[in-house]
Amino acid sequence: MTMSRSNSGANRRLDLPDCFRRLSPYIEDSLDDWLPEEGDITRDLARSMRYSVFSGGKRVRPVLTLLASEVISGDFRPALPAACAVEFIHSYSLIHDDLPCMDDDDLRRGKPTNHRVFGEAMAVLAGDALQSLAFEVVSDDRAGYSARQVRDMLAGLARACGARGMVGGQARDIDGRSEDLDSLSRLHSMKTGALFRASLDLGAVTAGAVCEQRSLFRQYADGFGLAFQITDDILDVVGDPEKTGRYAGSDEEGDRRTYPALVGLDASRELASRAVESGMQALRGLHGETRELREILEFVLRREG
Amino acid sequence: MTMSRSNSGANRRLDLPDCFRRLSPYIEDSLDDWLPEEGDITRDLARSMRYSVFSGGKRVRPVLTLLASEVISGDFRPALPAACAVEFIHSYSLIHDDLPCMDDDDLRRGKPTNHRVFGEAMAVLAGDALQSLAFEVVSDDRAGYSARQVRDMLAGLARACGARGMVGGQARDIDGRSEDLDSLSRLHSMKTGALFRASLDLGAVTAGAVCEQRSLFRQYADGFGLAFQITDDILDVVGDPEKTGRYAGSDEEGDRRTYPALVGLDASRELASRAVESGMQALRGLHGETRELREILEFVLRREG
Repeated sequence: MTMSRSNSGANRRLDLPDCFRRLSPYIEDSLDDWLPEEGDITRDLARSMRYSVFSGGKRVRPVLTLLASEVISGDFRPALPAACAVEFIHSYSLIHDDLPCMDDDDLRRGKPTNHRVFGEAMAVLAGDALQSLAFEVVSDDRAGYSARQVRDMLAGLARACGARGMVGGQARDIDGRSEDLDSLSRLHSMKTGALFRASLDLGAVTAGAVCEQRSLFRQYADGFGLAFQITDDILDVVGDPEKTGRYAGSDEEGDRRTYPALVGLDASRELASRAVESGMQALRGLHGETRELREILEFVLRREG
Repeated sequence: MTMSRSNSGANRRLDLPDCFRRLSPYIEDSLDDWLPEEGDITRDLARSMRYSVFSGGKRVRPVLTLLASEVISGDFRPALPAACAVEFIHSYSLIHDDLPCMDDDDLRRGKPTNHRVFGEAMAVLAGDALQSLAFEVVSDDRAGYSARQVRDMLAGLARACGARGMVGGQARDIDGRSEDLDSLSRLHSMKTGALFRASLDLGAVTAGAVCEQRSLFRQYADGFGLAFQITDDILDVVGDPEKTGRYAGSDEEGDRRTYPALVGLDASRELASRAVESGMQALRGLHGETRELREILEFVLRREG
């Protein structure tokens, strides 16, 4: 039900703001550069890692990383290794989420999931190796970051991934209790929000952002993550299945862990608007060209699938 | 068949050199300090992580980390966070190794494996979170490392864990082909050797070791890892099942991936001796008190289980 679970990437791509088209080629090349090759490592492991990294993701997180860097320094290129790191973390989380013992999904973005192609053991290992690779890329000499940048980035990234972040959110989700609004926000803030925050923060750090700027990016990331989650939940209730790839109402049955189910549609829309406004406010505090970050935030509210 | 697969920790502890008794209390306390608490995070995730970290491991890797630091600076304490990091990586690898889709083990060190107690989903997540935690601990301000130390340690640790290290070795092992001596050495060098190397290297870096010293620790680690692996294989052939917890010969059936099966018992013993001698030679090059590292190396050859 979260962004990461959606199988409708192909439909959604049509709506994406222009910056995705501008930045994606650089991201794809850089991901390819950092991934180990067959021959370099065991063939199946190399294939399994590459299969999931190149399975049609929208690259939302790395795009956010690059834009944050560009806002601060006018240049996105130094942020490319950091952008790859967050995408490797995201890819690893999807591989493990799809496992039979987790969500048991056979398809993701219309293609067989990693374990359906490579087997469960290799899927576990590919996820494990992608997590390590994220940390390896940022700390590699070729990434060109100063020791201080590496420390700041890895501290943030490790926290965002771990028991107090993404994995902790997933564990809460599995826990499966009914939630009130506060704990639902907290679940999503950990499960998907933490990596959005890290995505922007890593970009900011690569560009030499100061404390106040990093804090504004955090505010933007929180608004972005919350709005995305709420509109995702809303689309499950009212969406056109041809656009969302899901049947409306599928989240409601016995599940009190969506915003519309907890507070109703109107209040959910209001919450999403407020989250977007908070993100916009953060952008106004940042000096620099923030148009594309604004467009991504607007896109979250107007998307139909 | 590797060290990490052995279920006979309890028997082996009796033989351990004194430094294990001296250093273990510090390691146990420090592991406890760095692990998230219930309440702090979801109860099941906290329990699952703690269960495997405190399941009777010998703490070989963190002891090596502390000793490396002590040899260089005379003080093991600054290396404690780094020692926890390598133990968290080791614990995560055991949890994932035991999963039904991997080795499908029900017992480890005489206790039910993580997934038998907490379920497969939580076992996958606990492993994932322990990997993140390793990187978090080293880069945390409370660990007290300089930015340069953090970068050096995380670069080494990430490489040791990933597709070119531990996970890559595991993937080769699953691949299951018959091996010649070179590729068997390479398999173990990746699967268990890389983390031994990182264990010593992290300790050396926390103590401010220079390049030449780090290179000598690498030589020691390689000798140690190889000798340990070969004697482990030998014990499977000739060992007393009451001491090893395994039945002699269990590795031989249809498996050409042990040293005795490949080159015979005598040549295996010769290889182990030479590996130990190479480790001893490295110690002679290090100035400082290396007696305990020597004892650990001698222990590898004379252990009976």
